[in-house]
Amino acid sequence: MTTRPVQIIGAYLSPYVRKVLVVLELKGVAYEIDPLTPFMGDDRFSLLSPVRRVPVLIDDVVTLADSSVICQYLEDRYPKPALYPIDIFDRARARWLEEYADTRMGEVFIWHLFNQLIIKRFVWGEPTDQAVVDRAKNEEIPSILDYLETQVPASNCLFGDLSIADISIATFFRNAAYARYAVDARRWPKVAAYVERILAEGPFAKLKKFEDLSSRTPIDQQRTVLREAGAPISVETYMTTQPRRGVLQI
Amino acid sequence: MTTRPVQIIGAYLSPYVRKVLVVLELKGVAYEIDPLTPFMGDDRFSLLSPVRRVPVLIDDVVTLADSSVICQYLEDRYPKPALYPIDIFDRARARWLEEYADTRMGEVFIWHLFNQLIIKRFVWGEPTDQAVVDRAKNEEIPSILDYLETQVPASNCLFGDLSIADISIATFFRNAAYARYAVDARRWPKVAAYVERILAEGPFAKLKKFEDLSSRTPIDQQRTVLREAGAPISVETYMTTQPRRGVLQI
Repeated sequence: MTTRPVQIIGAYLSPYVRKVLVVLELKGVAYEIDPLTPFMGDDRFSLLSPVRRVPVLIDDVVTLADSSVICQYLEDRYPKPALYPIDIFDRARARWLEEYADTRMGEVFIWHLFNQLIIKRFVWGEPTDQAVVDRAKNEEIPSILDYLETQVPASNCLFGDLSIADISIATFFRNAAYARYAVDARRWPKVAAYVERILAEGPFAKLKKFEDLSSRTPIDQQRTVLREAGAPISVETYMTTQPRRGVLQI
Repeated sequence: MTTRPVQIIGAYLSPYVRKVLVVLELKGVAYEIDPLTPFMGDDRFSLLSPVRRVPVLIDDVVTLADSSVICQYLEDRYPKPALYPIDIFDRARARWLEEYADTRMGEVFIWHLFNQLIIKRFVWGEPTDQAVVDRAKNEEIPSILDYLETQVPASNCLFGDLSIADISIATFFRNAAYARYAVDARRWPKVAAYVERILAEGPFAKLKKFEDLSSRTPIDQQRTVLREAGAPISVETYMTTQPRRGVLQI
């Protein structure tokens, strides 16, 4: 067994990076991170992640570039504690909720909300398209919350102990908060309480400090500032100076 | 154990439906199909598939609406023959290739090629955007094939026996063929031979008959024509008469 920590490429503010870091924290796997905003990846990053997505995981054996694939791999390699339900029917439902979060919540919370309000302004210097934000807030997010309200439990987690489904759903609400969106607890009481409950779990709480720092530090200073704050910043970086769009445009 | 066949909702021409049907065929699981073009789903379909995607699987216990989640569930419930590599590192790589195919190949082969040339014309009566098709053929597909050429083997399958990775990749080339796109074997010799090899496997070959029929039969006659040709068409249908766009617009 190697003793080199698992290498993670990807910014603390990415919901998909957060998901993988929470899994690593829960399983007690040591890691180092290159807190890369995916638009700032260099040519070597394109080779590691063919669609220029984060996170990327690199360890002694594999290089993987999708959060769901990474989490399932971590479960296979480090089975304890189990983050996928044992029951195969619950496990299928957990994976469905993970997929729903990754794609539909990703599309709306990240691309229509966070991207418009944060990424476009701070990475690209472009104005927010308010019509996109309004549609997200008035139509798309309510539709997602209506669905989640039928899925999440009134107490505890979805499948007993904390699972990949809880982690995958909750991570998007941290980004929503950075975009100043809060769930209306009168309209979606179960979701509002559930999100608050899951985001209070140890690993989510621990990571928040580094996310807050990232959110108020210019990209080119983040590695230094995060390292000084105690984040496990890797030696190697895949950052370039010129922002570049991804391949996957959703 | 129930003896009712597994119910699949989704058209034979969908690459994601084909992927699930190939898995069902390989595992010898009996199924019935409602060959639904997702745009033709009724309101009950929206409840089963919140992002209006196909395939949907319904059996005695679960309802699932994502091909990767469905295939993993089928592997868990019907383990033989194994379609995910036993080795956890190979398994992770297989899942990565499945994810790459589902998202990146889906975006380009389906939305930029098949959608433009087939779906837009025959479902929506809209003209092809030739610029999108040209960019797919001249830039996006070559980039995908360059990547796959570094991944696929010169003979046999990716991981010994036929696996979820082979099935997930090959299925898109059947749709490419319906859009009259063929891989240039001089430029990408390994991919060209690999695709031909995988699509010649029994289940892919068996399904082709029903795909060909679907491709030349008006939507409202497909259930009847397919049933007469011996396809296991379900009694229940979720088809409506008025086409409706999905939620996920990639």
